[in-house]
Amino acid sequence: MKYEFNTDKEFDIIAIGRACIDLNATEYNRPMEETMTFTKYVGGSPANIAIGSSKLGLRAGFIGKIADDQHGRFIEQYMRGVGIDTSSMVIDTEGHKTGLAFTEIKSPEECSILMYREDVADLYLAPSEVNENYIKRSKVLLVSGTALAKSPSREAVLKAINLAKRNGVKVIFELDYRPYTWKSTEETAVYYSLVAEQSDVVIGTRDEFDVMENAKDGMNADTINYLFKHSPDLVVIKHGVEGSYAYAKSGETFRGQAYKTQVLKTFGAGDSYASAFLYALISGKDIETALKYGSASASIVVSKHSSSEAMPTVKEIEELIASAETISV
Amino acid sequence: MKYEFNTDKEFDIIAIGRACIDLNATEYNRPMEETMTFTKYVGGSPANIAIGSSKLGLRAGFIGKIADDQHGRFIEQYMRGVGIDTSSMVIDTEGHKTGLAFTEIKSPEECSILMYREDVADLYLAPSEVNENYIKRSKVLLVSGTALAKSPSREAVLKAINLAKRNGVKVIFELDYRPYTWKSTEETAVYYSLVAEQSDVVIGTRDEFDVMENAKDGMNADTINYLFKHSPDLVVIKHGVEGSYAYAKSGETFRGQAYKTQVLKTFGAGDSYASAFLYALISGKDIETALKYGSASASIVVSKHSSSEAMPTVKEIEELIASAETISV
Amino acid sequence: MKYEFNTDKEFDIIAIGRACIDLNATEYNRPMEETMTFTKYVGGSPANIAIGSSKLGLRAGFIGKIADDQHGRFIEQYMRGVGIDTSSMVIDTEGHKTGLAFTEIKSPEECSILMYREDVADLYLAPSEVNENYIKRSKVLLVSGTALAKSPSREAVLKAINLAKRNGVKVIFELDYRPYTWKSTEETAVYYSLVAEQSDVVIGTRDEFDVMENAKDGMNADTINYLFKHSPDLVVIKHGVEGSYAYAKSGETFRGQAYKTQVLKTFGAGDSYASAFLYALISGKDIETALKYGSASASIVVSKHSSSEAMPTVKEIEELIASAETISV
Amino acid sequence: MKYEFNTDKEFDIIAIGRACIDLNATEYNRPMEETMTFTKYVGGSPANIAIGSSKLGLRAGFIGKIADDQHGRFIEQYMRGVGIDTSSMVIDTEGHKTGLAFTEIKSPEECSILMYREDVADLYLAPSEVNENYIKRSKVLLVSGTALAKSPSREAVLKAINLAKRNGVKVIFELDYRPYTWKSTEETAVYYSLVAEQSDVVIGTRDEFDVMENAKDGMNADTINYLFKHSPDLVVIKHGVEGSYAYAKSGETFRGQAYKTQVLKTFGAGDSYASAFLYALISGKDIETALKYGSASASIVVSKHSSSEAMPTVKEIEELIASAETISV
Repeated sequence: MKYEFNTDKEFDIIAIGRACIDLNATEYNRPMEETMTFTKYVGGSPANIAIGSSKLGLRAGFIGKIADDQHGRFIEQYMRGVGIDTSSMVIDTEGHKTGLAFTEIKSPEECSILMYREDVADLYLAPSEVNENYIKRSKVLLVSGTALAKSPSREAVLKAINLAKRNGVKVIFELDYRPYTWKSTEETAVYYSLVAEQSDVVIGTRDEFDVMENAKDGMNADTINYLFKHSPDLVVIKHGVEGSYAYAKSGETFRGQAYKTQVLKTFGAGDSYASAFLYALISGKDIETALKYGSASASIVVSKHSSSEAMPTVKEIEELIASAETISV
Repeated sequence: MKYEFNTDKEFDIIAIGRACIDLNATEYNRPMEETMTFTKYVGGSPANIAIGSSKLGLRAGFIGKIADDQHGRFIEQYMRGVGIDTSSMVIDTEGHKTGLAFTEIKSPEECSILMYREDVADLYLAPSEVNENYIKRSKVLLVSGTALAKSPSREAVLKAINLAKRNGVKVIFELDYRPYTWKSTEETAVYYSLVAEQSDVVIGTRDEFDVMENAKDGMNADTINYLFKHSPDLVVIKHGVEGSYAYAKSGETFRGQAYKTQVLKTFGAGDSYASAFLYALISGKDIETALKYGSASASIVVSKHSSSEAMPTVKEIEELIASAETISV
Repeated sequence: MKYEFNTDKEFDIIAIGRACIDLNATEYNRPMEETMTFTKYVGGSPANIAIGSSKLGLRAGFIGKIADDQHGRFIEQYMRGVGIDTSSMVIDTEGHKTGLAFTEIKSPEECSILMYREDVADLYLAPSEVNENYIKRSKVLLVSGTALAKSPSREAVLKAINLAKRNGVKVIFELDYRPYTWKSTEETAVYYSLVAEQSDVVIGTRDEFDVMENAKDGMNADTINYLFKHSPDLVVIKHGVEGSYAYAKSGETFRGQAYKTQVLKTFGAGDSYASAFLYALISGKDIETALKYGSASASIVVSKHSSSEAMPTVKEIEELIASAETISV
Repeated sequence: MKYEFNTDKEFDIIAIGRACIDLNATEYNRPMEETMTFTKYVGGSPANIAIGSSKLGLRAGFIGKIADDQHGRFIEQYMRGVGIDTSSMVIDTEGHKTGLAFTEIKSPEECSILMYREDVADLYLAPSEVNENYIKRSKVLLVSGTALAKSPSREAVLKAINLAKRNGVKVIFELDYRPYTWKSTEETAVYYSLVAEQSDVVIGTRDEFDVMENAKDGMNADTINYLFKHSPDLVVIKHGVEGSYAYAKSGETFRGQAYKTQVLKTFGAGDSYASAFLYALISGKDIETALKYGSASASIVVSKHSSSEAMPTVKEIEELIASAETISV
């Protein structure tokens, strides 16, 4: 089964939300206190998805606000360098800083992130900075859940969704839940359900859908029963090493399996999954193949040091699908 | 034409939002600098609508947060005294104060309000304080636009709307636009359109609908064309002394005319209009009659000193409809 | 013993700090919930002291920030009307409101105040709005402790004190402690001791001196022992109905007794005390007489409805001293 | 001429203020956009001074608040490792982060810093966390001006100064002016003059003294004329490559000259100067020698990559004094 997109659009995908800096421990397999150097990469879920998509060959654009400093300029230059249209990236004029993520890799199983997200530039994107003429040029608007965490970014994204729907642009909602940015899970649930109800495709882990429902141990059947009463017609629910499920409103269900790999760290799995899954879907591959692309891409990225720089090519993904073993649970 | 409500509900109407204090100039027809005493009344649009509805005979409830002080207690006692169920009014525990409105009446044409709305208790109503079991007991959830102006009241109201829709409760959205509470008109437009699209009935002045559309000099035809693509099936647009229009999704249009009266001040016209219009609608009168009730009630309140205390009885409204002249424009 | 002032100054006293609105229950001897009308007066400790002093005949000025609205204009007009120089009162341009105090008089023994002090204009007086050329024209700079509670008013007052000391202007510090404006008593103690150490005269209740010392049940002997190591040479400590003590650095101690009166409410006692005490001191009366003036003025004000409007004349004070009984404890 | 300290104290110096993280460009002589790795050091003026002093042999302690995360733990471990008593370093419990300084070294003449100082842990040190029993154990309390920039750190430092003065501990004020933390130069001037007037020794650049005086192009003669009316009896004013001047209240003036060196970057000059100057002063060397120690230490640090790790030993300083040429201007 294939998923249909409007074909007369200039961009395949426009992502909206944060573009930040990852500072990854150069010396790893130790506590961060003992790490003395850090390597700089572009980071942030929607930026990573745009980078991953662009490296796979999609025509990608980005809407976001970046700091007026060396980190902000590095982000714009890097994203432009991998082929992303950065003409709708806005430079902050009020002194806000770039979000930072220091990553600690004690072992493949013990990874953590030390976040700097206080008053960061990306959360200051304003509704007036979101442009209807830009959004309507794309097949897809990719919305990252974290961009809903604070005003005015929240209103900028709600406006972008409204404009996408008025202009025949598919809204794809990557739940991307990061607790540190939100005031309460009640607040998250309010905006996650509001946006999910208006989206065409919703992607997240089982835990993230639980956050959307303000519930614990939710069942996929209840989730799709709820969402299919509203706009969504495709819902992807990820269950870690147990693989992922894609549910179509038409009634079909597809399962994707995870691939065995040498894990270095767990960061970046979700973003690489989303970029390859969307690449396949938008390129006209069927949903079952798209699930394989997502899993394969995630396997590759978790075996490497960065999240953005490590985004694979189509060739790497296809080779892994051809050769790697899947994980049976 | 009549508008249908779910009949097996205990409450006719539950209003959500602010309940405040009006301090009306006891000595009027002068600048406030020369007013030396002020008379205290309950105020705030949704509180006034609940009071007006209850005095007309509807079974009304209220969801809102009040200060833990003498003003907060006065509000709860007064509202309970006129027959409103106050069991879902929550007492603030963080020291927030009651909103205040000092009214200045220089002349019937020159009225102004000096507002105290900084960090007021009503805007701190939290989503966790909104209860599904309460909302589902009502035919109508009345939402006031001002309650959307700030978090967490904004999320509390968005949650209440979600719960109303899940439980067959009609959502009636009174735009009630107060510029001083909002950061920007862009922000207002985002939430007003989001909520209007999800409501069953939308009521406001032409100017307020322009705010919702982030536009100037909007046309009623465009407004209803937009809203009828979504949930609303009844839209009431008020044009001051030129009267008001009710548009039904079925295609019918109804016009109500304003009544001549001896104006003392302009405050309270909208709230008294809404309470009498809703009373008539919920009581099973046809839309045309409901428009007359709204206009008549507004005429009575603008001729009196307060907004809440002055809310008329059915008898007063019907006598005015029977005897007063309408304004021809 | 007399206290010496610089005689070649144009103003007797310039007060710095808040000028607010009191809304006194018109119907009293009941809970405020049952009070339906409120009477408006100018209030706020330094404003009251300026008003009291001016009515007694001192040449008074005022430095403070007032709201750009009807309440702000009323305050300026009233203060100008009683003879105060208001040329250094600054109009707020950022939408801050006038502080409000609703007074509840349940009985002479049960008085309370419902304060509106959130983001009030007076606390936004900035250091750049404090003018050396103005301050140096006065014999006395009267500083109210509450003006130290928040930035930028805090820095404006610290700057004013610095300028006073450079220009031979006596700094009189009225502790005027209001807990609701401060973050912690630790913070209050830091600024109260900092300012007290730099002042010439310090006036407060025993409880207020305890706050300055961040201690409980402090002894007057310890307080003066501490303060006389720094700038102060006169310290007045009030003990309610037990009367007040004035301690001079030279070693002399004076005691003032309270007068019997028909108490209506307790508000305004401190401000009326300070204005009459300072009037007497600046007029060249000896300290013992000044203590009598303070007590007599307080006795008169607590028997009346307002704090500012009720400030007595010299004749009233002298008649009371001549005729009233003192309280023996 | 020697400067006298109380000899019966356990610590030579206790510094109060910020301890942060420097992230220095590993690849330098280029814009930061092109730097891909950063090396981590402890930073922040008072931390650097404590580290420098401790490495020179002084018994040093530190009062400050650190984040409850990997960066905070690294700071405490590093400082303890160089011999500093960290028993009064408080761990933040409210989620505040460690301040960061990314350094860019385009060339020895073009250095800049990208700061993360929003809501950082060090500025949340509270007055209740400053302990009289700790402070009184030291000869010197070293106060860094930046710690005065925000509440509650501001009040913590004001309290520490008050306690130092009550207990015979010399207060040394390093002006350490960083504009990004302050609201206005007016505000800085208020606190800088307040603290300078209460200090025993004041150290800063000519530009920093101009900030204290809220003036431009100030003269050293006016500065010392003003400060010697208050507590200070030693004032050190630095003029970059032109050297520095030490003014004693007794009337003597001393000049120190800068040493020629191979400059890598300009960061850390002030902190290394202060630590070696104070080491010499506290060790009983005369003021002239102390100026040489300061200049020599600064020369060494600006030729190396870090500010803290590069702090020299006494041997290195003495060798440089013996061999290096001074700069003649």
